[in-house]
Amino acid sequence: MKIFRVGYKGCERWSIEDEESNLILCEGSPFTKLDRTGPVVRKESVKILPPSTPSKIVAVGLNYTDHARELNMDIPSEPIIFMKPLTSVIGHEENIVYPPMSERVDYEAELGIIIKKIISHADEKTAKAGILGFCCANDVTARDLQKKDGQWTRAKSFNTFCPFGPCCSTDIEPDNLSIKLRRNGRVLQDSNTSNFIFKTGYVVSFISKVMTLHPGDLILTGTPAGVGPVGRNDILEVDIENIGVLRNKVV
Amino acid sequence: MKIFRVGYKGCERWSIEDEESNLILCEGSPFTKLDRTGPVVRKESVKILPPSTPSKIVAVGLNYTDHARELNMDIPSEPIIFMKPLTSVIGHEENIVYPPMSERVDYEAELGIIIKKIISHADEKTAKAGILGFCCANDVTARDLQKKDGQWTRAKSFNTFCPFGPCCSTDIEPDNLSIKLRRNGRVLQDSNTSNFIFKTGYVVSFISKVMTLHPGDLILTGTPAGVGPVGRNDILEVDIENIGVLRNKVV
Repeated sequence: MKIFRVGYKGCERWSIEDEESNLILCEGSPFTKLDRTGPVVRKESVKILPPSTPSKIVAVGLNYTDHARELNMDIPSEPIIFMKPLTSVIGHEENIVYPPMSERVDYEAELGIIIKKIISHADEKTAKAGILGFCCANDVTARDLQKKDGQWTRAKSFNTFCPFGPCCSTDIEPDNLSIKLRRNGRVLQDSNTSNFIFKTGYVVSFISKVMTLHPGDLILTGTPAGVGPVGRNDILEVDIENIGVLRNKVV
Repeated sequence: MKIFRVGYKGCERWSIEDEESNLILCEGSPFTKLDRTGPVVRKESVKILPPSTPSKIVAVGLNYTDHARELNMDIPSEPIIFMKPLTSVIGHEENIVYPPMSERVDYEAELGIIIKKIISHADEKTAKAGILGFCCANDVTARDLQKKDGQWTRAKSFNTFCPFGPCCSTDIEPDNLSIKLRRNGRVLQDSNTSNFIFKTGYVVSFISKVMTLHPGDLILTGTPAGVGPVGRNDILEVDIENIGVLRNKVV
């Protein structure tokens, strides 16, 4: 099931995609209960919003074997985590703003995990049961500042540096999905989440042992090989199997 | 003026300390308008809550000349920033929980800045005008995990690792305050914010050029020399001139 959060007649509404790719507007929320009350609307007639309003965004560093090989880095024994602020969030078709502080900004296609329930000190099975679904995300990074600072926070925290969407896809197998990044139509990252070093259940369990996760929280699972720079006016597309395409322009 | 957020008869209320150290309960909030409607209550009769509900917590690494000398580190040319999650927040007299994942947890006494207005790309003067006031904070850190990970996020993000309070003190000069940390009554950090490498106005301006700051957001300004380990049952006190004492027990 693909769940979209949309702007409709000045309100935020949750909705579910039907067989014709239209949206059935709902009452309630996917974190409690979604009622398909209608009406059915065309996607073009609503504004697609990010498919959750997280209380925090936690991301995993190096998590693909192909990316580790590309960087000649050892496979980490535990996930390395960092955070992105809520002010970095934008949705599908919104613009990524190139910050004046940086001279080198990179795309990073990532699978996003959206949390459904409060999760704390969970084993992998409990962690998996606490996931609502999955989305596309772009962990936009000012590579020059990442290298300069050593710590990754500034480089990954600029306003608009966390596009995610377009929907939250439920009931899919997250650890075996094709993941691609296209810049202006050209494929620059092309991998599969089966290359994860730490699978989704392990990642959520691990983070839950550090900090309590809340409904709507977003977890980014790392990027595969092929990261590279973006330029102004570039169109970036993160395309993940069984989820969809997240498209953003750089301005 | 010292502003306290308190729990009173099952509600959260903002209040102002009077000359007898009692609290005048108010209507409204310090981010809009505080009306001293009363009643006046004794501090012992209410629960002291953290003096804001931030949308994010941003912290600065190495920011005291005495701490840089102690570590034999160069003075950084720009602030190094990191984030702590909202789930790490606790208030005055709440317990810091020693996490099973770590074998070495340290205290770090810090001056906290509480933001009053939306601030983005601000110069120092505008940044200063956007500050509500200042509080005591303890940037509790799992030192072993900080060294292991290289990235600081996991080490600083455990539940209960961000005590701040007891109040928000307004109209004080933040860049010349005595700051002390006591463990079980013994002074282990004893410095002055005049040793800041980056002063408060500069720090807020710098962060506002990366991410938009919102009312209630908390900024931690780094710790002076003398950091060290805590043990179970330790009483930690952060004591900052013109603000007060933040006290937490380790359990």
